[in-house]
Amino acid sequence: MSEPDKSEEDIPDDPAGKGIPNGGNAAKSQEDFDLASIYVSDAQYNRNIYFDTSPEAVKLYMRYNHWIPKVFLFFFILVDLSLAIFEKPAVFPVPTLYTALVELLCLLVFSLRLVHYAKVIPRDKFWKDPKNICIIVILVLTVVDLIVYESLEAANCYAVRWSRVLRPLLLVNVTEGRQLRRAFRSIRNALPQIFYVFLLFMFSLLIFSLMALKLLGKRGLKTIDGAPYFTNYLEIVFDLYVLVTTANSPDVMMPAYNASFVFAIFFILYILINTYIFMSVFLAVVYNNYKKYLKEEVRQLVRAKRHKMVRAFAVLQEQRAEGGEPVVTQTNWNQIVKLVAFVQLADLLNIEVITLKSRPHPLQSAFDTIIVISALIATIINSVITSSQSYTSRQILDIVFILRVLRLIRVVDSIKRFRAIINTLIRIGPAILTFGQLIIVVYYIFAMVGMELFKGKIQFFEDGSVDPARAYCGNPLLKGTAFAQLNYCKNNFNNVVSSFVLLLELTVVNHSGFAAVTHASARLFFIVFHIMVVIVIINIFVAFVLEAFFVEYSVDKGDLQTSLEKKIEELELAVAQEKLEDNLVNAMETMDSDQGTGQSASNKPALMFKIASKRYRTVDALLQRMFEADLDPEDFAENDDDANGNFANPAFSSV
Amino acid sequence: MSEPDKSEEDIPDDPAGKGIPNGGNAAKSQEDFDLASIYVSDAQYNRNIYFDTSPEAVKLYMRYNHWIPKVFLFFFILVDLSLAIFEKPAVFPVPTLYTALVELLCLLVFSLRLVHYAKVIPRDKFWKDPKNICIIVILVLTVVDLIVYESLEAANCYAVRWSRVLRPLLLVNVTEGRQLRRAFRSIRNALPQIFYVFLLFMFSLLIFSLMALKLLGKRGLKTIDGAPYFTNYLEIVFDLYVLVTTANSPDVMMPAYNASFVFAIFFILYILINTYIFMSVFLAVVYNNYKKYLKEEVRQLVRAKRHKMVRAFAVLQEQRAEGGEPVVTQTNWNQIVKLVAFVQLADLLNIEVITLKSRPHPLQSAFDTIIVISALIATIINSVITSSQSYTSRQILDIVFILRVLRLIRVVDSIKRFRAIINTLIRIGPAILTFGQLIIVVYYIFAMVGMELFKGKIQFFEDGSVDPARAYCGNPLLKGTAFAQLNYCKNNFNNVVSSFVLLLELTVVNHSGFAAVTHASARLFFIVFHIMVVIVIINIFVAFVLEAFFVEYSVDKGDLQTSLEKKIEELELAVAQEKLEDNLVNAMETMDSDQGTGQSASNKPALMFKIASKRYRTVDALLQRMFEADLDPEDFAENDDDANGNFANPAFSSV
Repeated sequence: MSEPDKSEEDIPDDPAGKGIPNGGNAAKSQEDFDLASIYVSDAQYNRNIYFDTSPEAVKLYMRYNHWIPKVFLFFFILVDLSLAIFEKPAVFPVPTLYTALVELLCLLVFSLRLVHYAKVIPRDKFWKDPKNICIIVILVLTVVDLIVYESLEAANCYAVRWSRVLRPLLLVNVTEGRQLRRAFRSIRNALPQIFYVFLLFMFSLLIFSLMALKLLGKRGLKTIDGAPYFTNYLEIVFDLYVLVTTANSPDVMMPAYNASFVFAIFFILYILINTYIFMSVFLAVVYNNYKKYLKEEVRQLVRAKRHKMVRAFAVLQEQRAEGGEPVVTQTNWNQIVKLVAFVQLADLLNIEVITLKSRPHPLQSAFDTIIVISALIATIINSVITSSQSYTSRQILDIVFILRVLRLIRVVDSIKRFRAIINTLIRIGPAILTFGQLIIVVYYIFAMVGMELFKGKIQFFEDGSVDPARAYCGNPLLKGTAFAQLNYCKNNFNNVVSSFVLLLELTVVNHSGFAAVTHASARLFFIVFHIMVVIVIINIFVAFVLEAFFVEYSVDKGDLQTSLEKKIEELELAVAQEKLEDNLVNAMETMDSDQGTGQSASNKPALMFKIASKRYRTVDALLQRMFEADLDPEDFAENDDDANGNFANPAFSSV
Repeated sequence: MSEPDKSEEDIPDDPAGKGIPNGGNAAKSQEDFDLASIYVSDAQYNRNIYFDTSPEAVKLYMRYNHWIPKVFLFFFILVDLSLAIFEKPAVFPVPTLYTALVELLCLLVFSLRLVHYAKVIPRDKFWKDPKNICIIVILVLTVVDLIVYESLEAANCYAVRWSRVLRPLLLVNVTEGRQLRRAFRSIRNALPQIFYVFLLFMFSLLIFSLMALKLLGKRGLKTIDGAPYFTNYLEIVFDLYVLVTTANSPDVMMPAYNASFVFAIFFILYILINTYIFMSVFLAVVYNNYKKYLKEEVRQLVRAKRHKMVRAFAVLQEQRAEGGEPVVTQTNWNQIVKLVAFVQLADLLNIEVITLKSRPHPLQSAFDTIIVISALIATIINSVITSSQSYTSRQILDIVFILRVLRLIRVVDSIKRFRAIINTLIRIGPAILTFGQLIIVVYYIFAMVGMELFKGKIQFFEDGSVDPARAYCGNPLLKGTAFAQLNYCKNNFNNVVSSFVLLLELTVVNHSGFAAVTHASARLFFIVFHIMVVIVIINIFVAFVLEAFFVEYSVDKGDLQTSLEKKIEELELAVAQEKLEDNLVNAMETMDSDQGTGQSASNKPALMFKIASKRYRTVDALLQRMFEADLDPEDFAENDDDANGNFANPAFSSV
């Protein structure tokens, strides 16, 4: 896991002194524009990288931030993670040498990216950043593990590819993984509080288990399998822990309840205290802490963003008259707008700039496309599945029909009452992707460990199989157990796909048929998984959904504009919608040429914004909005009195 | 359910004009003191009863509020509810005539209490109050039902005791059930919002079911019982609804997953959207609405309380000098203190008044007593259970030993980190009683309906039974089902106790073996129960725990004193603890006699408060504290500018 990212969170100073305003009317060089546009673009994408401001480093940094190397990087991370499908235990077995070569290629790409990064930022900053150290350690360990594993394989010895556990950590530690890193930091910061509640919960669990042992242990009761009921203290602790996840309710209670209904009182008390109260307390603690730390992070984010914008203006500003305020000329402004691209500048302000007709509604505009693409994908999947069976075009038509039914959502969305709910669900969308990454990182680690521990313990036999072992999932230890009877054989750790599906099932309802086939201590794996995923991550997810809904409801009541939206209205830059052209980028260019022919637009602001949909697109924007009411006013203060003190508030000036 | 209680929430006016101050130094009559003390006592217990202020009505009202008739009333409500244990289907069968006679006695008591109430409040107010109408309707319907049932029984006809469903509503509608009524009102107010989310959820459920039917219905898959898998639309809707409760996970997925892992994607999507997102949205909506309405109720409560206190002072105040402020003399004050009893007056201010030694800590002071009493009860229960078996004194010693282990909680409580958590858990305590009543009301209604629908369908056979029917719970329809195999036979509706246990199990994990033994439509019963209990009530409970924890955490940070505590400190009434006597009531009396001997204490306030534990005892105090930050300042304004306008701010004066 990445260490707290001090250097990243610092607001970058100005090592090369470029930020100090020129003070004269000297024409801006291309380097100045590059630097300014990079500040704006950093602010836009919430990058907090302390880059070197020498022209060469700036050029390298611009290349570093280009979308092509980024897509390239993520593609190779994906390839690296996907290797688990082809490595033993494999879904599609491939010789070890091939996967090793592909992995080495991936490692090469990661190394090159890291070298590129090292050239962009000052040497000392690079080595102080735990992210970089972490990546280097992962790369070295992976190479060592590969060599050791291949040698042992060649010598036909038993070997474990333990470095695979480290793979998802790359996703956390690359510079682009900052949202994921933020989520992990918030979790880590919440851990001490969760830990104290967990200790109390364990205390309660142990006391209840002791009571259960003394109350029920000597009554000679039997479980449904004929085993002695509640006679072993550790077994009781585990059974009662599982009762908290509701997985073995009411089974765990039945033998005692069958003996006397009075014992039901014990279980009712237990469920009330441990299942309902303690689980709610976990949610409360996770919610409270996660929100607190996330708020602090978002606060820093907003400050850093403003700082970088001020720096960008500082690079571009000029002194018009003696003693006058420094200004940014329209020419310079237009130049930077061209460099950064206007619509993205709007993103910077977390506002969707739209015209009323061109993008009336996210659902309406995109919906048919989504439907058609989904139908296409579904058709392909369907034909892949049915390729071995009798193929009917009827089935494809069916699926297209269902997907057409999804258009009903549009009708539902047009009803005002449902709109608030759907709006919130849409807003949560991008955040789910961050949680998705989080879940994948944790699942991947548990899947790798689980595969080493449990692979091959449980066999799945295809439908047509007549093997007698099919009745007990290929493991005699499972003969007659509920696990085999319920035909859970495919819930195994035999490859990465079934591991992921099993982990999902464990997230929903935690059970552990694997203790029976290995050792009672295997239960630890399932308890740790439950604590990490259900108690921490799922609770954070629930907290996130709760908070997003509370924001939506408070927006309905008041008029919670972002401060930036207010600012735009103050500056009278917001215009009546009929003035807007269909495409704002075109509109910008029209205005440029207007000014070129000398027809001055000096009485009107040259920039016009239309504040549009309240459906925000980025996670950061949603977070900022969530915590906006709680942010310090100074985070939005117009004059940043930073150490340099050089930057006056930038002012617009028409040519 | 009780209708919105307009008349109760109204701040009572002053129908008899007693509230207008006398304006002179005339000695206060006993009636004045009665009236004043009743205002104070109404404020203390948050009673909002619009009583007649004629001396006779006041006397009756004082008797109405005495603790003896109240305990009497609750005892008979308990008896009435407990009748279900003895009525068919009975735990302990008793002839119908006996239970009918006891019920008639209960009805008589309720009627007498209602007549008493009718004499206290004005006639028109009585008939406008839906609570009273509700009680009268319940009484009449119960009598009618009793007569019809007894006649049909006598004629050996089939008869249903449908009026039993109405019994728990008495608990809601008696004047003392105001906290329960408030909870129900909050739930009802939240229902429209919940309903809209529920519609969206149903829409999503129906769409997913349609997709499941089209995707899986024609593949010829079989469930574990060999039945066709996902071929009936309504069955799919039900199965997927149950998946939201996680009760049939992963069983419902296994046939599809065994066919191909691609189908797992469908279930993953379903679980993400419906189990995680929609269930969180339900929590968010319930939380938001419940909090909103409860806050409004608490606001009204606080206002009404202040109003009543002002009224009490208005009755007692005197004009000392021309143009001077009206004052309450020390004599009058002492008189009212004696009438209301001092420690209760402290309750009024929601502050525990204690001395440091006499009650250092709620856990420390009460803990040993609780342990000893619990041990005693456990011993009795234990000996009852073991009376038929071989009796060992060892077992009792065991239980006493465990209960002694509970004293460890005291050690845990002394660690500061755990203290905040335990404090909150203790604070939640009294609120759980309100939720307990809520749950009992809902469970009772469902138990009565469930018993009529499902009684005798499933039989439980004692351990020694050799009846072959034991293998299938006495119902051939259950032969070979998981329900019978897992030995769930005691989960039945055959009497009120097993009904309650079953409903608790359904709250934890919803399942429905009863559809198999009756009709598929029986599932409706379980769906409705899940919506009412899990989606609404349990979510409200979780919301309550969350809110209580957030308050605790915010208290840790700031110094969130109640405004009343601040007021006391302002008035310098808070004293150093060494000045306090062991018993505050004694201390009051000492001061009284001091003044009687002429040794004036005029330079010091005669009243001294010590603000003690931050562990509040009453639900109302907790609620008030929860929402204090959000209450309007006017609710705490010192000068109530009400319509009368007569009451100046009351001032103390020593004799």
